[in-house]
Amino acid sequence: MRDREKVFIHTLKQSGATFGIGDDGVSVGTYLIANDAFFEDIHFKRAWASLEDLVEKCFLVNLSDIYAMNAIPSFLLLTLSVPDNFKEVSKLAQIIGDCAKKYRIKIIGGDTLVGEKLHFSLTLLGQKRQRTLFRKGIKQGNILGYITPKGALNHAKMQSFGQNLKILKNSLRFCRDKKISKYSRFAKPLLYPKMLFELNNIAKAGMDISDGISLELSRLSQVNRLGFKILKQKGDWLYSPEEYQMLYAIERRNLKKMQKKAWKFRHQFVPFAVAIRGKYIAKKQNWHE
Amino acid sequence: MRDREKVFIHTLKQSGATFGIGDDGVSVGTYLIANDAFFEDIHFKRAWASLEDLVEKCFLVNLSDIYAMNAIPSFLLLTLSVPDNFKEVSKLAQIIGDCAKKYRIKIIGGDTLVGEKLHFSLTLLGQKRQRTLFRKGIKQGNILGYITPKGALNHAKMQSFGQNLKILKNSLRFCRDKKISKYSRFAKPLLYPKMLFELNNIAKAGMDISDGISLELSRLSQVNRLGFKILKQKGDWLYSPEEYQMLYAIERRNLKKMQKKAWKFRHQFVPFAVAIRGKYIAKKQNWHE
Repeated sequence: MRDREKVFIHTLKQSGATFGIGDDGVSVGTYLIANDAFFEDIHFKRAWASLEDLVEKCFLVNLSDIYAMNAIPSFLLLTLSVPDNFKEVSKLAQIIGDCAKKYRIKIIGGDTLVGEKLHFSLTLLGQKRQRTLFRKGIKQGNILGYITPKGALNHAKMQSFGQNLKILKNSLRFCRDKKISKYSRFAKPLLYPKMLFELNNIAKAGMDISDGISLELSRLSQVNRLGFKILKQKGDWLYSPEEYQMLYAIERRNLKKMQKKAWKFRHQFVPFAVAIRGKYIAKKQNWHE
Repeated sequence: MRDREKVFIHTLKQSGATFGIGDDGVSVGTYLIANDAFFEDIHFKRAWASLEDLVEKCFLVNLSDIYAMNAIPSFLLLTLSVPDNFKEVSKLAQIIGDCAKKYRIKIIGGDTLVGEKLHFSLTLLGQKRQRTLFRKGIKQGNILGYITPKGALNHAKMQSFGQNLKILKNSLRFCRDKKISKYSRFAKPLLYPKMLFELNNIAKAGMDISDGISLELSRLSQVNRLGFKILKQKGDWLYSPEEYQMLYAIERRNLKKMQKKAWKFRHQFVPFAVAIRGKYIAKKQNWHE
């Protein structure tokens, strides 16, 4: 799909009808708005998790976009499609309501309909804080780093989930009837909004990592017209997807300050690259098909 | 689906996580936001119309919600799902871009993915004008009326479309392989924003008619805790769906003024009911399943 998505977005941009596309969300008035879809058999399989976990994951993916741009998630619009034989409509509504309350989001609209599968499409509005953090804004010499609770991005739990997800996705793609391993796990990203808001204030630019650092770097490269020199030994950490940890660019002089702040929340800011003249192109290791 | 949708929305509201649900859109800051899904084999069949017409219809349904609340459509977020064998991604992007330009809307975000079918889910933001028009605000004695270009709501073209659509939907529901009549038509609603903005200013309350007047009246009855006495002979006009014409409540003294304004745009304001104490319950004649 990635290629078709590229064609689609490229053509749409060429048409001159777009505005602000390229960040996790877009700034409109005092709000930041992010849109994400979460479709059965594309982003998840029902067997992977309970309805509670599915709904929460779907919220967290969107929350992450809003936090990443330094806004406070406030309002949600939801398009929900449920299969014809879906018996848990009332339960699902309860779960969605509870999840919204947990994250202090008001549901302000939506559409529910019967489709072939369980699909969620979310539009989340966040109230802007003082300063909005964009992907753009990186200068030569800035330090790139990621946030992690354990000093390495792909810590055990995430890695295990990532590998399982890859196997699952491949099995979905090539062999739809293949049984899913009972060991498969469904990781919910952990978000620390308080920490993110403090780090966002120090950073020059940032984004959440959803497709692996390497792919995100190539996006930052394009937007900022800069390259990146990787300072850390290359490895899985560069390609591990679906982390929902932040990627930040900071001024060199703020490195200590950034690390201290992260540490306050038992996290690490791990510097791994420096912005240089040039272009960064990701090795092909796409996650989503 | 209507029943399940009711259960879903009822449970969600009970959870205390909702805000402002009940109008065509919801007011957030200086914006009005509306959300609508347009799914293949639920809201349309590919064979009914060209891609251009499908996209425009899908825009118009959302535009109508925004106009109805007296706002100027400004920004769009779009979740698009295309079937795996869909070859016209670039063409579709071009059509969507052109349509957005035609209606002066900027596309600010979205998600594209491969699904089973062609699905659109739109979130449209409208810039509020001086006064927002809600469904609430009707008082006893107010006159209810609809807007139509020809003096009767279900004029020939619409009626023909409506009947065809009904047959098509039934055939979709009960007999999925049934061939669709080559006479089936796919009506694009006609919207006159300039007129609507002038009429909106006179009205006490309003909404666009998407499920037939009778069903919309029962919604107005619930929100306003009032009944409606129908003054016109009951007939098809009360149940004809998918008109995207406005339903207004006005003060009795503004009837002439309202009719004059509509006439200026070659339309008629047709009064058909008066707000009374009590409750209006629609006869069961649901459109969407």
